[in-house]
Amino acid sequence: MQPDWIAADWGTSNLRVYAMSAQGRVLAEAVSEDGMGRLVPEQFEPALLRLIGAWLGEGVLPIYACGMVGARQGWVEARYRTVPCPPLDVGALTRVPVQDKRLRVFIAPGLSQAKPADVMRGEETQIAGALAQGGGDGVYCLPGTHSKWAHVSAGEVVSFQTFMTGEMFALLAKQSVLRHGLAGAEGEVPEAFDAAVSEALSRPERLAARLFTLRAEGLLEGLGAAAARSRLSGLLIGAELAAAKPYWLGQPVTLIGSAGLSAAYARALAAQGVSAKLLDVASCTLAGLSTLIAPRP
Amino acid sequence: MQPDWIAADWGTSNLRVYAMSAQGRVLAEAVSEDGMGRLVPEQFEPALLRLIGAWLGEGVLPIYACGMVGARQGWVEARYRTVPCPPLDVGALTRVPVQDKRLRVFIAPGLSQAKPADVMRGEETQIAGALAQGGGDGVYCLPGTHSKWAHVSAGEVVSFQTFMTGEMFALLAKQSVLRHGLAGAEGEVPEAFDAAVSEALSRPERLAARLFTLRAEGLLEGLGAAAARSRLSGLLIGAELAAAKPYWLGQPVTLIGSAGLSAAYARALAAQGVSAKLLDVASCTLAGLSTLIAPRP
Repeated sequence: MQPDWIAADWGTSNLRVYAMSAQGRVLAEAVSEDGMGRLVPEQFEPALLRLIGAWLGEGVLPIYACGMVGARQGWVEARYRTVPCPPLDVGALTRVPVQDKRLRVFIAPGLSQAKPADVMRGEETQIAGALAQGGGDGVYCLPGTHSKWAHVSAGEVVSFQTFMTGEMFALLAKQSVLRHGLAGAEGEVPEAFDAAVSEALSRPERLAARLFTLRAEGLLEGLGAAAARSRLSGLLIGAELAAAKPYWLGQPVTLIGSAGLSAAYARALAAQGVSAKLLDVASCTLAGLSTLIAPRP
Repeated sequence: MQPDWIAADWGTSNLRVYAMSAQGRVLAEAVSEDGMGRLVPEQFEPALLRLIGAWLGEGVLPIYACGMVGARQGWVEARYRTVPCPPLDVGALTRVPVQDKRLRVFIAPGLSQAKPADVMRGEETQIAGALAQGGGDGVYCLPGTHSKWAHVSAGEVVSFQTFMTGEMFALLAKQSVLRHGLAGAEGEVPEAFDAAVSEALSRPERLAARLFTLRAEGLLEGLGAAAARSRLSGLLIGAELAAAKPYWLGQPVTLIGSAGLSAAYARALAAQGVSAKLLDVASCTLAGLSTLIAPRP
Protein backbone atom coordinates (compact mmCIF):
# COMPACT_ATOMS: atom_id res chain seq x y z
CA MET A 1 0.00 0.00 0.00
CA GLN A 2 1.47 3.31 -1.12
CA PRO A 3 -0.65 6.35 -0.22
CA ASP A 4 -0.22 9.59 -2.13
CA TRP A 5 -1.14 11.72 0.84
CA ILE A 6 -2.54 11.55 4.37
CA ALA A 7 -5.73 13.19 5.61
CA ALA A 8 -5.82 13.95 9.34
CA ASP A 9 -8.91 14.91 11.30
CA TRP A 10 -7.24 16.06 14.53
CA GLY A 11 -9.71 17.15 17.17
CA THR A 12 -9.60 17.78 20.91
CA SER A 13 -10.15 14.14 21.87
CA ASN A 14 -9.05 12.03 18.91
CA LEU A 15 -6.65 11.84 16.00
CA ARG A 16 -8.07 10.11 12.94
CA VAL A 17 -5.86 9.55 9.89
CA TYR A 18 -6.60 8.27 6.40
CA ALA A 19 -4.13 6.94 3.82
CA MET A 20 -5.36 8.45 0.57
CA SER A 21 -4.80 7.79 -3.11
CA ALA A 22 -4.32 10.72 -5.49
CA GLN A 23 -7.84 10.00 -6.72
CA GLY A 24 -9.28 10.53 -3.23
CA ARG A 25 -9.79 6.86 -2.37
CA VAL A 26 -9.29 5.77 1.26
CA LEU A 27 -6.63 3.02 1.28
CA ALA A 28 -6.46 2.62 5.07
CA GLU A 29 -7.42 4.46 8.20
CA ALA A 30 -6.40 4.56 11.85
CA VAL A 31 -7.46 6.35 15.00
CA SER A 32 -5.96 7.09 18.40
CA GLU A 33 -6.88 9.07 21.50
CA ASP A 34 -3.99 11.46 20.95
CA GLY A 35 -6.32 14.41 20.65
CA MET A 36 -4.97 17.95 20.85
CA GLY A 37 -6.29 18.16 24.42
CA ARG A 38 -3.71 15.75 25.81
CA LEU A 39 -0.62 16.77 23.85
CA VAL A 40 2.02 19.46 24.28
CA PRO A 41 3.61 20.75 21.04
CA GLU A 42 6.57 18.33 21.09
CA GLN A 43 4.23 15.35 21.30
CA PHE A 44 2.27 15.95 18.08
CA GLU A 45 4.87 14.62 15.64
CA PRO A 46 5.45 11.38 17.61
CA ALA A 47 1.67 10.91 17.98
CA LEU A 48 1.29 11.25 14.22
CA LEU A 49 4.16 8.88 13.49
CA ARG A 50 2.69 6.24 15.79
CA LEU A 51 -0.36 6.08 13.53
CA ILE A 52 1.10 6.58 10.05
CA GLY A 53 4.61 5.17 10.48
CA ALA A 54 3.74 1.97 8.61
CA TRP A 55 2.42 3.99 5.65
CA LEU A 56 5.64 5.92 5.08
CA GLY A 57 7.97 4.90 2.26
CA GLU A 58 11.19 6.39 0.89
CA GLY A 59 9.71 9.59 -0.43
CA VAL A 60 8.06 12.61 1.15
CA LEU A 61 4.39 12.24 2.09
CA PRO A 62 2.16 15.32 2.36
CA ILE A 63 -0.22 15.41 5.34
CA TYR A 64 -3.23 17.70 5.45
CA ALA A 65 -4.77 18.19 8.87
CA CYS A 66 -7.80 20.09 10.13
CA GLY A 67 -9.35 20.70 13.53
CA MET A 68 -8.13 21.74 16.95
CA VAL A 69 -4.57 20.71 16.04
CA GLY A 70 -4.30 24.28 14.71
CA ALA A 71 -5.50 25.97 17.91
CA ARG A 72 -3.25 28.23 19.97
CA GLN A 73 -2.78 25.33 22.43
CA GLY A 74 -2.27 22.88 19.54
CA TRP A 75 0.75 21.83 17.47
CA VAL A 76 1.29 25.11 15.65
CA GLU A 77 -1.29 27.88 15.62
CA ALA A 78 -3.06 28.21 12.29
CA ARG A 79 -4.56 31.70 12.53
CA TYR A 80 -8.29 31.99 11.92
CA ARG A 81 -9.41 33.32 8.56
CA THR A 82 -12.18 35.89 8.89
CA VAL A 83 -15.56 35.46 7.25
CA PRO A 84 -16.85 36.19 4.69
CA CYS A 85 -14.45 33.87 2.86
CA PRO A 86 -14.42 30.44 1.20
CA PRO A 87 -14.30 27.74 3.87
CA LEU A 88 -10.83 26.54 2.79
CA ASP A 89 -8.03 28.28 0.90
CA VAL A 90 -5.11 26.34 -0.51
CA GLY A 91 -2.98 29.46 -0.14
CA ALA A 92 -3.68 29.87 3.57
CA LEU A 93 -2.39 26.59 4.95
CA THR A 94 0.02 26.66 7.88
CA ARG A 95 3.19 24.64 7.24
CA VAL A 96 4.37 22.79 10.35
CA PRO A 97 8.13 22.40 11.01
CA VAL A 98 8.91 18.69 11.61
CA GLN A 99 11.91 16.51 12.47
CA ASP A 100 11.15 13.55 10.23
CA LYS A 101 12.18 14.44 6.68
CA ARG A 102 9.54 12.12 5.19
CA LEU A 103 6.72 14.33 6.48
CA ARG A 104 5.40 17.53 4.96
CA VAL A 105 2.59 18.70 7.25
CA PHE A 106 -0.02 21.38 6.57
CA ILE A 107 -2.79 22.56 8.90
CA ALA A 108 -5.97 24.12 7.54
CA PRO A 109 -6.95 27.16 9.62
CA GLY A 110 -10.38 27.62 11.14
CA LEU A 111 -12.72 30.56 10.60
CA SER A 112 -13.57 33.48 12.84
CA GLN A 113 -16.36 36.02 12.81
CA ALA A 114 -16.10 39.44 14.41
CA LYS A 115 -19.70 40.14 15.33
CA PRO A 116 -21.22 38.23 16.96
CA ALA A 117 -17.82 36.85 17.96
CA ASP A 118 -17.50 33.23 16.91
CA VAL A 119 -14.93 30.65 15.85
CA MET A 120 -14.79 27.23 14.23
CA ARG A 121 -12.00 24.72 13.62
CA GLY A 122 -12.68 21.61 11.59
CA GLU A 123 -16.22 22.44 10.51
CA GLU A 124 -14.89 24.73 7.74
CA THR A 125 -13.32 21.63 6.18
CA GLN A 126 -16.59 19.72 6.37
CA ILE A 127 -18.42 22.61 4.72
CA ALA A 128 -15.75 22.77 2.01
CA GLY A 129 -16.26 19.04 1.47
CA ALA A 130 -20.01 19.44 1.19
CA LEU A 131 -19.50 22.20 -1.38
CA ALA A 132 -16.98 20.05 -3.30
CA GLN A 133 -19.61 17.31 -3.43
CA GLY A 134 -22.03 19.72 -5.11
CA GLY A 135 -23.66 21.07 -1.98
CA GLY A 136 -23.96 24.60 -3.27
CA ASP A 137 -25.02 27.75 -1.50
CA GLY A 138 -27.45 27.64 1.40
CA VAL A 139 -27.69 26.79 5.06
CA TYR A 140 -25.44 24.20 6.71
CA CYS A 141 -25.97 22.82 10.19
CA LEU A 142 -23.24 20.75 11.85
CA PRO A 143 -24.74 19.29 15.03
CA GLY A 144 -22.39 18.05 17.73
CA THR A 145 -20.75 19.00 21.02
CA HIS A 146 -20.68 22.56 19.71
CA SER A 147 -23.21 22.76 16.90
CA LYS A 148 -22.54 25.22 14.11
CA TRP A 149 -24.98 26.90 11.75
CA ALA A 150 -23.44 28.49 8.67
CA HIS A 151 -24.78 30.48 5.77
CA VAL A 152 -22.94 29.91 2.49
CA SER A 153 -23.36 32.29 -0.42
CA ALA A 154 -21.34 32.42 -3.65
CA GLY A 155 -19.11 29.70 -2.25
CA GLU A 156 -18.21 31.75 0.83
CA VAL A 157 -19.15 31.29 4.48
CA VAL A 158 -20.97 34.54 5.09
CA SER A 159 -21.92 34.10 8.74
CA PHE A 160 -22.05 31.37 11.33
CA GLN A 161 -23.10 30.71 14.90
CA THR A 162 -22.10 28.18 17.53
CA PHE A 163 -24.43 26.50 20.03
CA MET A 164 -23.24 24.50 23.02
CA THR A 165 -26.17 22.11 22.70
CA GLY A 166 -24.24 18.82 22.73
CA GLU A 167 -22.07 19.85 25.65
CA MET A 168 -25.08 21.12 27.63
CA PHE A 169 -26.87 17.84 26.99
CA ALA A 170 -23.91 15.81 28.23
CA LEU A 171 -23.47 17.96 31.35
CA LEU A 172 -27.16 17.94 32.25
CA ALA A 173 -27.69 14.26 31.46
CA LYS A 174 -24.60 12.95 33.22
CA GLN A 175 -23.68 15.44 35.92
CA SER A 176 -26.71 17.46 37.00
CA VAL A 177 -29.56 16.41 39.30
CA LEU A 178 -31.36 15.24 36.13
CA ARG A 179 -28.96 12.30 35.86
CA HIS A 180 -31.01 10.40 38.45
CA GLY A 181 -34.00 10.34 36.12
CA LEU A 182 -32.05 9.62 32.91
CA ALA A 183 -29.81 6.79 34.16
CA GLY A 184 -30.09 3.63 32.11
CA ALA A 185 -32.26 5.22 29.42
CA GLU A 186 -32.57 2.95 26.41
CA GLY A 187 -34.01 3.95 23.07
CA GLU A 188 -35.85 7.06 22.01
CA VAL A 189 -39.38 8.26 22.74
CA PRO A 190 -40.19 10.26 19.60
CA GLU A 191 -43.42 11.80 20.96
CA ALA A 192 -41.56 13.13 24.01
CA PHE A 193 -38.86 14.56 21.75
CA ASP A 194 -41.39 16.17 19.40
CA ALA A 195 -43.42 17.72 22.20
CA ALA A 196 -40.30 19.17 23.81
CA VAL A 197 -39.01 20.65 20.54
CA SER A 198 -42.37 22.24 19.92
CA GLU A 199 -42.54 23.58 23.48
CA ALA A 200 -39.04 25.07 23.35
CA LEU A 201 -39.74 26.65 19.97
CA SER A 202 -43.10 28.14 20.87
CA ARG A 203 -42.12 29.32 24.39
CA PRO A 204 -38.33 29.66 24.33
CA GLU A 205 -38.39 31.99 27.33
CA ARG A 206 -39.70 29.09 29.45
CA LEU A 207 -36.68 26.83 28.86
CA ALA A 208 -35.10 27.51 32.25
CA ALA A 209 -38.37 26.49 33.89
CA ARG A 210 -38.81 23.28 31.91
CA LEU A 211 -35.59 21.48 32.80
CA PHE A 212 -36.35 20.73 36.44
CA THR A 213 -39.80 19.38 35.58
CA LEU A 214 -37.96 16.33 34.17
CA ARG A 215 -36.75 15.58 37.69
CA ALA A 216 -40.05 16.43 39.36
CA GLU A 217 -42.10 14.29 36.94
CA GLY A 218 -39.68 11.45 37.61
CA LEU A 219 -40.32 11.75 41.34
CA LEU A 220 -44.05 12.42 41.24
CA GLU A 221 -45.31 10.68 38.12
CA GLY A 222 -42.70 8.02 37.42
CA LEU A 223 -41.54 9.61 34.14
CA GLY A 224 -39.33 6.99 32.49
CA ALA A 225 -35.64 7.43 31.77
CA ALA A 226 -35.97 7.13 27.98
CA ALA A 227 -38.81 9.67 27.85
CA ALA A 228 -36.87 12.03 30.12
CA ARG A 229 -33.79 11.79 27.91
CA SER A 230 -35.77 12.33 24.72
CA ARG A 231 -37.44 15.35 26.30
CA LEU A 232 -34.12 16.83 27.44
CA SER A 233 -32.78 16.35 23.92
CA GLY A 234 -35.91 17.95 22.46
CA LEU A 235 -35.78 20.94 24.82
CA LEU A 236 -32.14 21.69 24.02
CA ILE A 237 -32.42 21.14 20.27
CA GLY A 238 -35.62 23.19 20.31
CA ALA A 239 -33.82 26.00 22.15
CA GLU A 240 -31.06 25.87 19.52
CA LEU A 241 -33.61 26.01 16.70
CA ALA A 242 -35.35 28.95 18.37
CA ALA A 243 -32.10 30.90 18.41
CA ALA A 244 -31.04 29.72 14.92
CA LYS A 245 -34.37 30.57 13.31
CA PRO A 246 -32.90 33.32 11.12
CA TYR A 247 -30.78 30.59 9.51
CA TRP A 248 -33.40 27.95 8.71
CA LEU A 249 -36.73 29.76 8.43
CA GLY A 250 -38.06 28.94 4.98
CA GLN A 251 -34.69 27.46 3.87
CA PRO A 252 -33.69 23.91 3.07
CA VAL A 253 -30.90 22.79 5.38
CA THR A 254 -27.91 20.51 4.85
CA LEU A 255 -27.00 18.57 8.00
CA ILE A 256 -23.43 17.32 8.43
CA GLY A 257 -23.24 15.11 11.51
CA SER A 258 -23.44 11.64 13.00
CA ALA A 259 -26.39 9.63 11.73
CA GLY A 260 -28.36 9.62 15.00
CA LEU A 261 -27.91 13.29 15.81
CA SER A 262 -28.61 14.43 12.26
CA ALA A 263 -31.80 12.36 12.25
CA ALA A 264 -32.95 14.12 15.44
CA TYR A 265 -32.28 17.55 13.93
CA ALA A 266 -33.98 16.55 10.67
CA ARG A 267 -37.04 15.39 12.61
CA ALA A 268 -37.19 18.64 14.58
CA LEU A 269 -36.81 20.70 11.39
CA ALA A 270 -39.41 18.64 9.51
CA ALA A 271 -41.95 19.51 12.22
CA GLN A 272 -41.31 23.15 11.28
CA GLY A 273 -41.82 22.39 7.60
CA VAL A 274 -38.12 22.51 6.79
CA SER A 275 -36.54 19.75 4.69
CA ALA A 276 -33.01 18.60 5.40
CA LYS A 277 -30.35 16.72 3.45
CA LEU A 278 -28.03 14.53 5.56
CA LEU A 279 -24.30 14.23 4.84
CA ASP A 280 -21.75 12.08 6.62
CA VAL A 281 -19.06 13.89 8.64
CA ALA A 282 -16.10 11.73 7.67
CA SER A 283 -16.80 11.84 3.95
CA CYS A 284 -17.23 15.64 4.10
CA THR A 285 -13.93 16.00 5.99
CA LEU A 286 -12.11 13.89 3.41
CA ALA A 287 -13.72 15.68 0.49
CA GLY A 288 -12.75 18.98 2.08
CA LEU A 289 -9.11 18.05 2.67
CA SER A 290 -8.99 16.61 -0.88
CA THR A 291 -9.59 20.10 -2.24
CA LEU A 292 -6.19 21.08 -0.80
CA ILE A 293 -3.99 18.57 -2.60
CA ALA A 294 -3.66 20.48 -5.85
CA PRO A 295 0.04 20.37 -6.69
CA ARG A 296 1.84 23.46 -5.45
CA PRO A 297 5.31 24.79 -6.18
CA MET B 1 -25.22 24.85 78.05
CA GLN B 2 -28.59 23.12 78.09
CA PRO B 3 -30.54 23.45 74.82
CA ASP B 4 -34.30 22.97 74.80
CA TRP B 5 -34.33 21.62 71.28
CA ILE B 6 -32.13 21.12 68.23
CA ALA B 7 -32.70 22.60 64.79
CA ALA B 8 -31.16 20.63 61.90
CA ASP B 9 -30.77 21.91 58.36
CA TRP B 10 -29.91 18.63 56.64
CA GLY B 11 -29.24 19.02 52.94
CA THR B 12 -27.61 16.93 50.22
CA SER B 13 -24.06 18.09 51.01
CA ASN B 14 -24.06 19.28 54.60
CA LEU B 15 -25.61 18.78 58.01
CA ARG B 16 -25.91 21.97 60.05
CA VAL B 17 -27.25 21.82 63.62
CA TYR B 18 -28.19 24.51 66.11
CA ALA B 19 -28.62 24.15 69.88
CA MET B 20 -31.71 26.26 70.60
CA SER B 21 -33.30 27.77 73.68
CA ALA B 22 -37.08 27.58 74.12
CA GLN B 23 -37.11 31.30 73.26
CA GLY B 24 -35.52 30.62 69.85
CA ARG B 25 -32.02 31.79 70.75
CA VAL B 26 -29.05 29.99 69.17
CA LEU B 27 -26.82 28.66 71.98
CA ALA B 28 -24.33 26.83 69.78
CA GLU B 29 -24.01 25.52 66.25
CA ALA B 30 -22.03 22.89 64.39
CA VAL B 31 -21.67 21.66 60.83
CA SER B 32 -20.36 18.57 59.08
CA GLU B 33 -20.19 17.21 55.56
CA ASP B 34 -22.51 14.34 56.45
CA GLY B 35 -25.07 15.45 53.88
CA MET B 36 -27.88 13.12 52.85
CA GLY B 37 -25.98 12.41 49.63
CA ARG B 38 -23.26 10.39 51.33
CA LEU B 39 -25.28 8.49 53.94
CA VAL B 40 -27.30 5.28 53.90
CA PRO B 41 -30.24 5.15 56.34
CA GLU B 42 -28.28 3.46 59.18
CA GLN B 43 -25.68 6.23 59.09
CA PHE B 44 -27.98 9.18 59.81
CA GLU B 45 -28.32 8.67 63.56
CA PRO B 46 -24.56 8.28 64.14
CA ALA B 47 -23.88 11.33 61.95
CA LEU B 48 -26.32 13.35 64.03
CA LEU B 49 -24.83 12.10 67.33
CA ARG B 50 -21.33 13.04 66.20
CA LEU B 51 -22.43 16.67 66.02
CA ILE B 52 -24.87 17.00 68.94
CA GLY B 53 -23.54 14.35 71.36
CA ALA B 54 -21.98 16.98 73.59
CA TRP B 55 -25.29 18.86 73.84
CA LEU B 56 -27.26 15.90 75.15
CA GLY B 57 -28.11 15.66 78.86
CA GLU B 58 -30.17 13.21 80.88
CA GLY B 59 -33.52 14.06 79.38
CA VAL B 60 -35.06 13.71 75.97
CA LEU B 61 -34.14 16.34 73.41
CA PRO B 62 -36.45 17.05 70.47
CA ILE B 63 -34.77 17.53 67.08
CA TYR B 64 -36.53 19.20 64.17
CA ALA B 65 -34.94 18.66 60.78
CA CYS B 66 -35.72 19.92 57.30
CA GLY B 67 -34.24 19.35 53.85
CA MET B 68 -33.15 16.37 51.79
CA VAL B 69 -32.90 14.24 54.95
CA GLY B 70 -36.60 13.52 54.28
CA ALA B 71 -36.13 12.43 50.66
CA ARG B 72 -36.83 8.88 49.51
CA GLN B 73 -33.06 8.23 49.54
CA GLY B 74 -32.73 9.98 52.93
CA TRP B 75 -33.12 8.85 56.53
CA VAL B 76 -36.87 8.26 56.48
CA GLU B 77 -39.09 9.49 53.68
CA ALA B 78 -41.23 12.46 54.71
CA ARG B 79 -43.92 12.44 52.02
CA TYR B 80 -44.42 15.69 50.13
CA ARG B 81 -47.42 17.80 51.06
CA THR B 82 -49.28 19.09 48.02
CA VAL B 83 -49.79 22.79 47.37
CA PRO B 84 -51.84 24.84 47.98
CA CYS B 85 -51.03 24.47 51.69
CA PRO B 86 -49.19 26.34 54.44
CA PRO B 87 -45.43 25.82 54.03
CA LEU B 88 -45.15 23.89 57.32
CA ASP B 89 -47.71 21.97 59.35
CA VAL B 90 -47.01 20.88 62.90
CA GLY B 91 -49.40 17.98 62.40
CA ALA B 92 -47.59 16.63 59.34
CA LEU B 93 -44.13 15.94 60.73
CA THR B 94 -42.55 12.54 60.15
CA ARG B 95 -41.33 10.89 63.37
CA VAL B 96 -38.05 9.03 62.87
CA PRO B 97 -37.43 5.77 64.81
CA VAL B 98 -34.06 6.02 66.62
CA GLN B 99 -31.83 3.84 68.83
CA ASP B 100 -30.68 6.49 71.29
CA LYS B 101 -33.48 7.08 73.80
CA ARG B 102 -32.37 10.68 74.38
CA LEU B 103 -33.38 11.67 70.84
CA ARG B 104 -36.85 12.45 69.54
CA VAL B 105 -36.44 13.27 65.85
CA PHE B 106 -38.97 14.89 63.51
CA ILE B 107 -38.55 15.65 59.82
CA ALA B 108 -40.54 18.40 58.14
CA PRO B 109 -41.82 17.23 54.74
CA GLY B 110 -41.26 19.16 51.53
CA LEU B 111 -43.92 20.39 49.13
CA SER B 112 -45.00 19.07 45.76
CA GLN B 113 -47.03 20.57 42.95
CA ALA B 114 -48.92 18.50 40.40
CA LYS B 115 -48.89 20.79 37.39
CA PRO B 116 -46.36 21.84 36.34
CA ALA B 117 -44.72 19.01 38.29
CA ASP B 118 -42.37 20.40 40.91
CA VAL B 119 -40.92 19.64 44.34
CA MET B 120 -39.05 21.40 47.12
CA ARG B 121 -37.41 20.19 50.34
CA GLY B 122 -36.04 22.72 52.80
CA GLU B 123 -37.24 25.86 51.06
CA GLU B 124 -40.75 25.40 52.56
CA THR B 125 -39.13 25.84 55.99
CA GLN B 126 -37.38 29.03 54.88
CA ILE B 127 -40.66 30.41 53.54
CA ALA B 128 -42.41 29.49 56.81
CA GLY B 129 -39.64 31.34 58.65
CA ALA B 130 -40.05 34.41 56.47
CA LEU B 131 -43.80 34.36 57.15
CA ALA B 132 -43.20 33.90 60.89
CA GLN B 133 -40.98 36.99 60.78
CA GLY B 134 -43.86 39.01 59.35
CA GLY B 135 -43.13 38.41 55.70
CA GLY B 136 -46.76 38.15 54.69
CA ASP B 137 -48.31 37.17 51.38
CA GLY B 138 -46.50 37.79 48.13
CA VAL B 139 -43.69 36.48 45.97
CA TYR B 140 -40.68 34.67 47.42
CA CYS B 141 -37.53 33.87 45.47
CA LEU B 142 -34.93 31.49 46.95
CA PRO B 143 -31.88 31.64 44.68
CA GLY B 144 -29.36 28.80 44.84
CA THR B 145 -28.30 25.57 43.15
CA HIS B 146 -31.96 25.02 42.36
CA SER B 147 -33.68 28.38 42.66
CA LYS B 148 -37.31 28.41 43.71
CA TRP B 149 -39.99 31.00 43.06
CA ALA B 150 -43.10 30.73 45.22
CA HIS B 151 -46.35 32.59 45.40
CA VAL B 152 -47.81 32.85 48.92
CA SER B 153 -51.43 33.84 49.45
CA ALA B 154 -53.43 33.72 52.70
CA GLY B 155 -50.44 32.08 54.36
CA GLU B 156 -50.38 29.20 51.87
CA VAL B 157 -47.90 28.36 49.13
CA VAL B 158 -50.17 28.52 46.11
CA SER B 159 -47.68 27.68 43.36
CA PHE B 160 -43.95 27.39 42.89
CA GLN B 161 -41.35 26.74 40.23
CA THR B 162 -37.79 25.45 40.29
CA PHE B 163 -34.92 26.68 38.10
CA MET B 164 -31.58 24.90 37.76
CA THR B 165 -29.75 28.21 37.44
CA GLY B 166 -27.08 27.66 40.10
CA GLU B 167 -26.30 24.15 38.94
CA MET B 168 -26.13 25.26 35.29
CA PHE B 169 -23.78 28.07 36.25
CA ALA B 170 -21.48 25.69 38.12
CA LEU B 171 -21.44 23.14 35.28
CA LEU B 172 -20.83 25.73 32.56
CA ALA B 173 -18.26 27.71 34.55
CA LYS B 174 -16.25 24.76 35.79
CA GLN B 175 -16.74 21.92 33.34
CA SER B 176 -17.71 23.24 29.92
CA VAL B 177 -15.48 24.80 27.26
CA LEU B 178 -16.29 28.16 28.88
CA ARG B 179 -14.09 27.26 31.86
CA HIS B 180 -11.00 28.30 29.88
CA GLY B 181 -12.23 31.88 29.74
CA LEU B 182 -13.52 32.05 33.33
CA ALA B 183 -10.56 30.52 35.15
CA GLY B 184 -9.15 32.73 37.88
CA ALA B 185 -11.95 35.30 37.64
CA GLU B 186 -11.81 37.73 40.53
CA GLY B 187 -14.52 40.19 41.42
CA GLU B 188 -17.64 41.23 39.56
CA VAL B 189 -18.11 43.37 36.47
CA PRO B 190 -21.53 44.91 37.10
CA GLU B 191 -21.93 46.41 33.61
CA ALA B 192 -21.30 43.00 32.03
CA PHE B 193 -23.85 41.44 34.37
CA ASP B 194 -26.45 44.12 33.71
CA ALA B 195 -26.06 43.94 29.94
CA ALA B 196 -26.39 40.16 29.98
CA VAL B 197 -29.51 40.21 32.16
CA SER B 198 -31.10 42.74 29.87
CA GLU B 199 -30.14 40.75 26.78
CA ALA B 200 -31.50 37.48 28.17
CA LEU B 201 -34.74 39.16 29.23
CA SER B 202 -35.35 41.01 26.00
CA ARG B 203 -34.34 38.16 23.66
CA PRO B 204 -34.71 34.97 25.72
CA GLU B 205 -34.89 32.85 22.57
CA ARG B 206 -31.28 33.82 21.81
CA LEU B 207 -29.82 32.35 25.03
CA ALA B 208 -28.46 29.20 23.40
CA ALA B 209 -26.62 31.40 20.91
CA ARG B 210 -25.12 33.75 23.52
CA LEU B 211 -23.22 31.25 25.65
CA PHE B 212 -20.48 30.36 23.17
CA THR B 213 -19.80 34.02 22.41
CA LEU B 214 -18.15 34.16 25.87
CA ARG B 215 -15.54 31.70 24.60
CA ALA B 216 -15.21 33.33 21.20
CA GLU B 217 -14.80 36.84 22.65
CA GLY B 218 -12.15 35.44 24.97
CA LEU B 219 -10.23 34.09 21.98
CA LEU B 220 -10.76 36.98 19.58
CA GLU B 221 -11.10 40.05 21.75
CA GLY B 222 -9.39 39.11 25.00
CA LEU B 223 -12.60 39.21 27.06
CA GLY B 224 -11.45 39.03 30.69
CA ALA B 225 -12.32 36.22 33.08
CA ALA B 226 -14.25 38.41 35.53
CA ALA B 227 -16.33 39.99 32.75
CA ALA B 228 -17.00 36.58 31.22
CA ARG B 229 -18.14 35.19 34.57
CA SER B 230 -20.37 38.18 35.28
CA ARG B 231 -21.89 37.82 31.82
CA LEU B 232 -22.52 34.11 32.26
CA SER B 233 -24.19 34.86 35.60
CA GLY B 234 -26.27 37.61 33.99
CA LEU B 235 -27.35 35.42 31.07
CA LEU B 236 -28.51 32.59 33.32
CA ILE B 237 -30.21 34.80 35.92
CA GLY B 238 -31.79 36.74 33.05
CA ALA B 239 -33.08 33.50 31.54
CA GLU B 240 -34.54 32.55 34.91
CA LEU B 241 -36.22 35.94 35.25
CA ALA B 242 -37.62 35.64 31.73
CA ALA B 243 -39.28 32.35 32.64
CA ALA B 244 -40.33 33.53 36.12
CA LYS B 245 -41.88 36.75 34.84
CA PRO B 246 -45.43 35.73 35.83
CA TYR B 247 -44.17 35.66 39.43
CA TRP B 248 -42.43 39.01 39.70
CA LEU B 249 -43.99 41.28 37.11
CA GLY B 250 -45.28 44.30 39.03
CA GLN B 251 -44.78 42.55 42.39
CA PRO B 252 -42.34 43.26 45.22
CA VAL B 253 -40.17 40.20 45.83
CA THR B 254 -38.67 38.76 49.00
CA LEU B 255 -35.29 37.11 48.37
CA ILE B 256 -34.09 34.38 50.73
CA GLY B 257 -30.52 33.45 49.88
CA SER B 258 -26.82 33.98 50.44
CA ALA B 259 -25.85 37.65 50.54
CA GLY B 260 -23.92 37.67 47.26
CA LEU B 261 -26.46 35.76 45.22
CA SER B 262 -29.42 37.68 46.61
CA ALA B 263 -27.66 40.94 45.77
CA ALA B 264 -27.23 39.78 42.17
CA TYR B 265 -30.93 38.88 41.89
CA ALA B 266 -31.94 42.17 43.55
CA ARG B 267 -29.81 44.09 41.06
CA ALA B 268 -31.35 42.24 38.12
CA LEU B 269 -34.86 42.80 39.45
CA ALA B 270 -34.20 46.48 40.17
CA ALA B 271 -33.30 46.98 36.51
CA GLN B 272 -36.83 45.75 35.75
CA GLY B 273 -38.33 48.19 38.25
CA VAL B 274 -38.95 45.51 40.86
CA SER B 275 -37.94 46.12 44.48
CA ALA B 276 -36.68 43.27 46.62
CA LYS B 277 -36.31 42.62 50.34
CA LEU B 278 -33.36 40.41 51.32
CA LEU B 279 -33.61 37.81 54.08
CA ASP B 280 -30.88 35.55 55.41
CA VAL B 281 -31.27 31.80 54.75
CA ALA B 282 -30.12 30.54 58.14
CA SER B 283 -32.33 32.86 60.15
CA CYS B 284 -35.34 31.95 57.99
CA THR B 285 -34.61 28.24 58.45
CA LEU B 286 -34.40 28.65 62.24
CA ALA B 287 -37.52 30.81 62.38
CA GLY B 288 -39.33 28.19 60.30
CA LEU B 289 -38.28 25.24 62.46
CA SER B 290 -39.15 27.32 65.56
CA THR B 291 -42.80 27.35 64.47
CA LEU B 292 -42.82 23.56 65.00
CA ILE B 293 -41.85 23.42 68.65
CA ALA B 294 -45.27 24.11 70.10
CA PRO B 295 -45.73 21.50 72.85
CA ARG B 296 -47.58 18.48 71.58
CA PRO B 297 -49.23 15.61 73.43
